[in-house]
Amino acid sequence: MAVNLPPPDPASLYPVPGVELSIAMAGIRKPNRKDLLVMRLAAGAAVAGVFTRNRFCAAPVLLAKKHLKGKAIAALVVNTGNANAGTGKEGLERAFSVCEAVGRTMQAKPAQILPFSTGVIMEQLPAEKMIAALPGLKPGGWAAAAEAIMTTDTVPKAFSRKVKLAGGEATVTGIAKGAGMIRPDMATMLGFIATDAKLPQAALGRMVKRVADRSFNCVTVDGDTSTNDAFVLISSGVGVEVRTEKEVKILEETVLEVARHLAQAIIRDGEGATKFVTVSVERGRSAAECRKVAYAIAHSPLVKTAFFASDPNLGRILCAMGYSGAPIDTDRIDLFIDEVLVAKRGTRNPSYREADAQAAMQKPEFTVRAVLNRGKAAATLWTCDFSFDYVKINAEYRT
Amino acid sequence: MAVNLPPPDPASLYPVPGVELSIAMAGIRKPNRKDLLVMRLAAGAAVAGVFTRNRFCAAPVLLAKKHLKGKAIAALVVNTGNANAGTGKEGLERAFSVCEAVGRTMQAKPAQILPFSTGVIMEQLPAEKMIAALPGLKPGGWAAAAEAIMTTDTVPKAFSRKVKLAGGEATVTGIAKGAGMIRPDMATMLGFIATDAKLPQAALGRMVKRVADRSFNCVTVDGDTSTNDAFVLISSGVGVEVRTEKEVKILEETVLEVARHLAQAIIRDGEGATKFVTVSVERGRSAAECRKVAYAIAHSPLVKTAFFASDPNLGRILCAMGYSGAPIDTDRIDLFIDEVLVAKRGTRNPSYREADAQAAMQKPEFTVRAVLNRGKAAATLWTCDFSFDYVKINAEYRT
Repeated sequence: MAVNLPPPDPASLYPVPGVELSIAMAGIRKPNRKDLLVMRLAAGAAVAGVFTRNRFCAAPVLLAKKHLKGKAIAALVVNTGNANAGTGKEGLERAFSVCEAVGRTMQAKPAQILPFSTGVIMEQLPAEKMIAALPGLKPGGWAAAAEAIMTTDTVPKAFSRKVKLAGGEATVTGIAKGAGMIRPDMATMLGFIATDAKLPQAALGRMVKRVADRSFNCVTVDGDTSTNDAFVLISSGVGVEVRTEKEVKILEETVLEVARHLAQAIIRDGEGATKFVTVSVERGRSAAECRKVAYAIAHSPLVKTAFFASDPNLGRILCAMGYSGAPIDTDRIDLFIDEVLVAKRGTRNPSYREADAQAAMQKPEFTVRAVLNRGKAAATLWTCDFSFDYVKINAEYRT
Repeated sequence: MAVNLPPPDPASLYPVPGVELSIAMAGIRKPNRKDLLVMRLAAGAAVAGVFTRNRFCAAPVLLAKKHLKGKAIAALVVNTGNANAGTGKEGLERAFSVCEAVGRTMQAKPAQILPFSTGVIMEQLPAEKMIAALPGLKPGGWAAAAEAIMTTDTVPKAFSRKVKLAGGEATVTGIAKGAGMIRPDMATMLGFIATDAKLPQAALGRMVKRVADRSFNCVTVDGDTSTNDAFVLISSGVGVEVRTEKEVKILEETVLEVARHLAQAIIRDGEGATKFVTVSVERGRSAAECRKVAYAIAHSPLVKTAFFASDPNLGRILCAMGYSGAPIDTDRIDLFIDEVLVAKRGTRNPSYREADAQAAMQKPEFTVRAVLNRGKAAATLWTCDFSFDYVKINAEYRT
């Protein structure tokens, strides 16, 4: 059902020196599926992350943020099947016990382990199952790692690039998961990107924020900002050293390319998605104003069901722009579906023919472009449609 | 499909002296259906209204607001099938031409006529069809009037009460329409309540705002604030005179009862609705904070699909509260489904059994009660679930 999203070819995913992956079947929610991933980092690796702003953020989010303030992260442990959110003090204790157990396998302290969870909310984490599965961890590649963090995802999400720097070539490989409860406020459900290039901690911390804002923070499936969002950038440090600001920029462009690919993959695999839609709002007074308008369009159930039906009932888009809260001038707005000018200066373009918009919307990918004509700022989001299967998936999930 | 909403019994709807209703089939969108309503008012009637805050508000909304600033409203003209929104200057001219034509039939000026439209957006109003249908208007009652303003509504919405005042008995009768694009910011798609009681214009203007805030402004189907929302309160003035503040209060309670019934009827008939859900948020710092939390719950597609499935996947409710933007203390929150305590102090109630919440959610009506335990304010909303039929209706509407 995913839109133009083939499973990643394992051969296309470059291993990242300094990052060892191992995977197990812990039976956290369902038997016989990969649901536990440990990413062990070389000594001296740097790690930076951004996390959900949901006030009900999960126990592993609280713990990972705390552990990131310390030093020398030795490993990340990621489970699917249980989000460990809405679980109170006991949830924190259980997440910590997993960090302890993972730490013991590599002579590290619990505070050197970052925990991540995804899955059902408000049920206690079966930490004992996870701990019991640790001896059975088997080395794996990034494709298997991507598979081990899926929930309602139908396709594993992984992407890899190499980039030339002054000191030599660096690898950037990342994985992500997510299909519903997706409207990242800092990052998506779970996204991990690793490079072997050696970057100082401070530079890594700045980069993860900038990249998140231009990738994971630009997608929405259903407007539901999750309790567990986390996007983590790892520099294993065993590869080439990044020495200059110019080199940081070059590396960052590649990290951004990987992050955008992963963020867009989440939308392509959005729950029930049949369309991948780019929402571009241009010529606003500020980027914030453009984002407000873009999110109103991307979250409207009426707009999303019209996308599903390829029905150019495009008054719904104007309506959503009107209630977005942005102080737009309605009689200046031009609205396009791909190249089709639908509304001109806030009203129907006299030469507009519905058949043209319909043809554009019948494609699995198209762009909604709203030109506000009141400034120079712009914003772009990626979203999907709202189909019968979205309801089916979410009415049946868990049961 | 509507939830506990039988069609109104015409005999239960009291005529309002001083308000004459007439109805026609103008073929605005479809042939052979009532789609045009004229409400003629007695000389000296007072009218007050509240309107959508959507910046793309419709031509009839702009015109009705302008005409309300004048005096002596003689009639309201309401059509279904076309919203006359996103139609620019031509939309205003067409709406005005209808006001002119209606005015001519009763020796009134165009500015004494209030126009209202509902239906598809961004298509020009077929004013000529409406004008041609005026000679064919036939007298009708409130049940027929309610029918003449339906769009995707499956049940006409009308309600009536009598109330004893010092000078005698007064009648309060109202109609409304709406099923989708419902998240009134001032009022719902269209709601009209008339009383024969005589009230000064200023008192009527204050009353319409207070009543809207406690009725139509407390419902949401899909979060889409429409371009055409209008709620109008009419005092025909031919009945008892309301003389004291105490009497205003008594009348207002009855108007509120009628308005709440109509607002809740819109939710019971929400597009695809199978459940009628009351969302009550209590013990917050402010009513605004409670409303923020309540709307986050009521708009979450994940929560609404869980309502549909009667699946107590209630972590989704905590998640929505967490991203609502309200500064809630997550470890103080208690969450109930009817009488079932699901979450206690932000985490799962140890004695909670899912079967209990499931039993509550399987009923066609239940209450989600979130107790914030940080203040004394409260807010209540009414909403519905998100079903296959919501997608079906909105993917197929118009086509």
